[in-house]
Amino acid sequence: MTQASLRGRVISRSVARDTDVQAWEPKGRYRLTRVGVTNLVKPVRVRRPSGEVVLQPVIDVFVDLPPELKGSHLSRNVEVLGEGVDLSLRDPVTSLEDLCQRLARQLLVRHEYASWSQAQARADYFLEREVGNGRTSLERYRLIARAQAHREDPIRVRKLIGVEVVGISACPCAMEGVREIISKERPELSGPIDQIPMMSHNQRNVATLMLEVPEDVELEANDLIDLVEGQLSAPTKELLKREDEARLVIQAHSNPKFVEDIVRDILDAVVRQYPDLPDDTSVIVRSESKESIHKHNAFAERVTTMGELRS
Amino acid sequence: MTQASLRGRVISRSVARDTDVQAWEPKGRYRLTRVGVTNLVKPVRVRRPSGEVVLQPVIDVFVDLPPELKGSHLSRNVEVLGEGVDLSLRDPVTSLEDLCQRLARQLLVRHEYASWSQAQARADYFLEREVGNGRTSLERYRLIARAQAHREDPIRVRKLIGVEVVGISACPCAMEGVREIISKERPELSGPIDQIPMMSHNQRNVATLMLEVPEDVELEANDLIDLVEGQLSAPTKELLKREDEARLVIQAHSNPKFVEDIVRDILDAVVRQYPDLPDDTSVIVRSESKESIHKHNAFAERVTTMGELRS
Amino acid sequence: MTQASLRGRVISRSVARDTDVQAWEPKGRYRLTRVGVTNLVKPVRVRRPSGEVVLQPVIDVFVDLPPELKGSHLSRNVEVLGEGVDLSLRDPVTSLEDLCQRLARQLLVRHEYASWSQAQARADYFLEREVGNGRTSLERYRLIARAQAHREDPIRVRKLIGVEVVGISACPCAMEGVREIISKERPELSGPIDQIPMMSHNQRNVATLMLEVPEDVELEANDLIDLVEGQLSAPTKELLKREDEARLVIQAHSNPKFVEDIVRDILDAVVRQYPDLPDDTSVIVRSESKESIHKHNAFAERVTTMGELRS
Amino acid sequence: MTQASLRGRVISRSVARDTDVQAWEPKGRYRLTRVGVTNLVKPVRVRRPSGEVVLQPVIDVFVDLPPELKGSHLSRNVEVLGEGVDLSLRDPVTSLEDLCQRLARQLLVRHEYASWSQAQARADYFLEREVGNGRTSLERYRLIARAQAHREDPIRVRKLIGVEVVGISACPCAMEGVREIISKERPELSGPIDQIPMMSHNQRNVATLMLEVPEDVELEANDLIDLVEGQLSAPTKELLKREDEARLVIQAHSNPKFVEDIVRDILDAVVRQYPDLPDDTSVIVRSESKESIHKHNAFAERVTTMGELRS
Repeated sequence: MTQASLRGRVISRSVARDTDVQAWEPKGRYRLTRVGVTNLVKPVRVRRPSGEVVLQPVIDVFVDLPPELKGSHLSRNVEVLGEGVDLSLRDPVTSLEDLCQRLARQLLVRHEYASWSQAQARADYFLEREVGNGRTSLERYRLIARAQAHREDPIRVRKLIGVEVVGISACPCAMEGVREIISKERPELSGPIDQIPMMSHNQRNVATLMLEVPEDVELEANDLIDLVEGQLSAPTKELLKREDEARLVIQAHSNPKFVEDIVRDILDAVVRQYPDLPDDTSVIVRSESKESIHKHNAFAERVTTMGELRS
Repeated sequence: MTQASLRGRVISRSVARDTDVQAWEPKGRYRLTRVGVTNLVKPVRVRRPSGEVVLQPVIDVFVDLPPELKGSHLSRNVEVLGEGVDLSLRDPVTSLEDLCQRLARQLLVRHEYASWSQAQARADYFLEREVGNGRTSLERYRLIARAQAHREDPIRVRKLIGVEVVGISACPCAMEGVREIISKERPELSGPIDQIPMMSHNQRNVATLMLEVPEDVELEANDLIDLVEGQLSAPTKELLKREDEARLVIQAHSNPKFVEDIVRDILDAVVRQYPDLPDDTSVIVRSESKESIHKHNAFAERVTTMGELRS
Repeated sequence: MTQASLRGRVISRSVARDTDVQAWEPKGRYRLTRVGVTNLVKPVRVRRPSGEVVLQPVIDVFVDLPPELKGSHLSRNVEVLGEGVDLSLRDPVTSLEDLCQRLARQLLVRHEYASWSQAQARADYFLEREVGNGRTSLERYRLIARAQAHREDPIRVRKLIGVEVVGISACPCAMEGVREIISKERPELSGPIDQIPMMSHNQRNVATLMLEVPEDVELEANDLIDLVEGQLSAPTKELLKREDEARLVIQAHSNPKFVEDIVRDILDAVVRQYPDLPDDTSVIVRSESKESIHKHNAFAERVTTMGELRS
Repeated sequence: MTQASLRGRVISRSVARDTDVQAWEPKGRYRLTRVGVTNLVKPVRVRRPSGEVVLQPVIDVFVDLPPELKGSHLSRNVEVLGEGVDLSLRDPVTSLEDLCQRLARQLLVRHEYASWSQAQARADYFLEREVGNGRTSLERYRLIARAQAHREDPIRVRKLIGVEVVGISACPCAMEGVREIISKERPELSGPIDQIPMMSHNQRNVATLMLEVPEDVELEANDLIDLVEGQLSAPTKELLKREDEARLVIQAHSNPKFVEDIVRDILDAVVRQYPDLPDDTSVIVRSESKESIHKHNAFAERVTTMGELRS
């Protein structure tokens, strides 16, 4: 530990020094790729097709910083965000990615030295779902959004729209294994059990779909949620009466899937449902099962582009 | 915002003032029930029956503070902990609760003004388990320990020994519901399916047992882990080959349990296996299922004493 | 591992068995103190003095379970919650504790076998604060609420209202130590530096106040937030321009406090500002500093009653 | 909700079907970029220069999966890990990245269909540090490691070695602002205060350095920790007696730094201390301050290569 000593210390200060500390010249000439603030939480009004909702996103905003500047003016980021959020109260954004786009553009305006900016946000989001017999439940999903603005002429923006869906995955391999054991140990049951799904391990699966597209491509998060939820063994539901619960269990076991299957089925649905997405659309798909029989998770992922998927 | 002004501010300092800021007289005369440091992480050597292991507990230590003192000497807590940990390198503790007991006693020695002290710790802990065909796997558990020392003559210490076990719970209600649906819709299968367990939802369940006893009562965490793990529908295993996985699924479904059943079965096993625990032993049992069909968890708990359980 | 075998297994089922699995008689005769669902997240409309806000609380609900019942009907908990939340859309609750009270009462209605019920919730909450020069910022706080209903005639409800505030704590002890070092090593500076606050370590402090009162006592969370925020060395602010930031730093250092001081000052403010709270009001006050000079936290707490505080 | 029906369901099973479900042909022809298991926790023995230590890393392992296979054999991942860990008991690895390298190579052996594999790990790590007057304290750091193996002839492996260090950052801008306010409002103090550091906001800063290099380049994590810790305003220390604490505060304030400064200073130290690292070495440097005056964090990052840094 190099302990500080005050003996003889004199802080050198030229009287005329610029009081804008951020503008001082830094030691070394290193460009920084991302400078900003993270973990800002603000309520944001969003005008959805189904009416206005209030989201509480966790937001990060960044710009790059050229080598000749000591610091980025971080309070400007918070100002940009504050104005964006205030604005959303009068003029609601239409989506979380719309908010990120506005923020990313405004960040470039306020940080005149930056050549690039980024705003990203995550928020819980609720949709009403039928849960049987006309009953409904507000189900929780997660929205992911990001926008990156490049200082070109004109400014070029790419935006990412993502969703995270918690559903059920039932394991096809364990189900097969159970059938084999029963067939071997109780051969007289072999015929009947081949006609119905068997027990298997099943668990919460978190499936994620993220698409990054040019600013003018419109995608609707609700559609992405439906797409993803449809590829799980079954959805999870907050409210289930007795028979609905049993039917949901049967549905999941009628449709057993590995994490690999879920990722491929989401990829397949994206290819079929979004034929017009440009080739350079980035596509990230994930599925993670909180395995009921293990303490660890099973995980599958594909990182690709629409062009590659279609080729 | 009451903004600070330096105009005319003079910090009042009597020249002869005691430099022990903690000993200054506080504003108001309020006793504090717990003052200390939290979230200390240190590796600790523990001599277990099966050999020496290194735990990495997260530790909190506290004492009470009489109304006439401004501050507790927090660095003494860290010293006590550091000495305890150093000591464990030369003279390993025998358990996490043994560490907490030593710390709680030493805290009373060092904080001469305190009438009470507490040390609590949580750590991951690994046991080798058979996973089929002679293979083994190191399975992860969680140890919970706490000791409270009361300044009486002699000092009286109570210690808490707890374990957290992740296992499988399979739902008996959904299984019944599935049988009913199949019996109704496929009556010809009704006989065969009554002879085997049916599919149900199953998931990770975190079951907890904590016992608080006088200092001289010895309990072995490994035994508590076995006790708890035995009451789940089945244990979770990190390594499962194909047939072992199917057999574990059958085991869990042959033994379907609500969270309520798991708590009651742990209580029952405690009563049967620990007949000699004193009546004033505190008993806390919990079971929480990360429901595969819901986004929320199911939870059951009993907080009681051995005396009450036996009555 | 006791592996399951299907050889000869026959599931015993009496044809006329009650299909309400929860009503089956459990093994053992153990009462459970809390059975319910945890980690439910739902958006809730709350009519605040300043207008309507949408909170996204994480909610847990529980009832007790008598020994003769195997299971609690957990879906009823979710129904109660769903109805409470739906109701809040038409008839907004007035606070998070109002929501919890409604839920706790309704839980007793729906679980006719329960003698006690509990609903607890936590939610982020935003208040507009001045941050200097007429600018404002939406600052984030945390609301904590709980209600417990006891089946007496009439039903008796106690509710807990709590707030969590993130502010700054600056350490008085390190500031004194810095003065001493400077006075000793640079005696010529001793006079000037006694007239202004000195550098010290400062950090985020999470201060908590929770009061549990009978149902008919009204407390306003905004007032509790103001009370707690006023006892920290200074508040934290999301938006600070250069001079405001420096003034906030001076404010915090003009008002250095231990975690112990913060707890005592909150206790003192509660005693002064709430003279009419009943003697049996439970009072919990905490302060935890994420120490900038350590990897661990400093912590102080008082658990008491209003009667004890006033005596 | 598409509810499952059992009416008329017949599970199609060819008698001779391959029982290796993972080898079935999947629907769609999509390659997967990462398939594996996450969140495995195992104790691992590591032979460090200073003696043997036990780490408890959280480990993820992945391989890619060609389009013609339905599933990856996930249990092989756990076997590879189990063998690696068992092996470490007899033949301790020399570092966390050494473990990851062994795992990545072995993954390619066991998943004969994979063209790529990855193993990553994170673990707490403790080093003894002087804390003043000959006292020492075990300080906590975080190790990050990753290895990626590419099936070429011979197999090519790149490994990432990273460290995360918690230290103090003191803000230079607020310190300047404080000086200005005091100089303006108490001009008579202007001379003296220019000779010593002033109060500022200071907080925990998490600084990260990660270097990805070819397998045969040796880097020592202890050196990286020293390098990073040396670029913070000051280190954090678990144990500080009164004067040591004040000196640490003075040290931090004598060395105020933005998150941007910390990143640049780490980059500069890497360039100076590692002149022999190949040009294609990936370099990631981050600094995140848990701002004491805000509820959000300040963040800076550079993602680059050694070649780019030196150019």
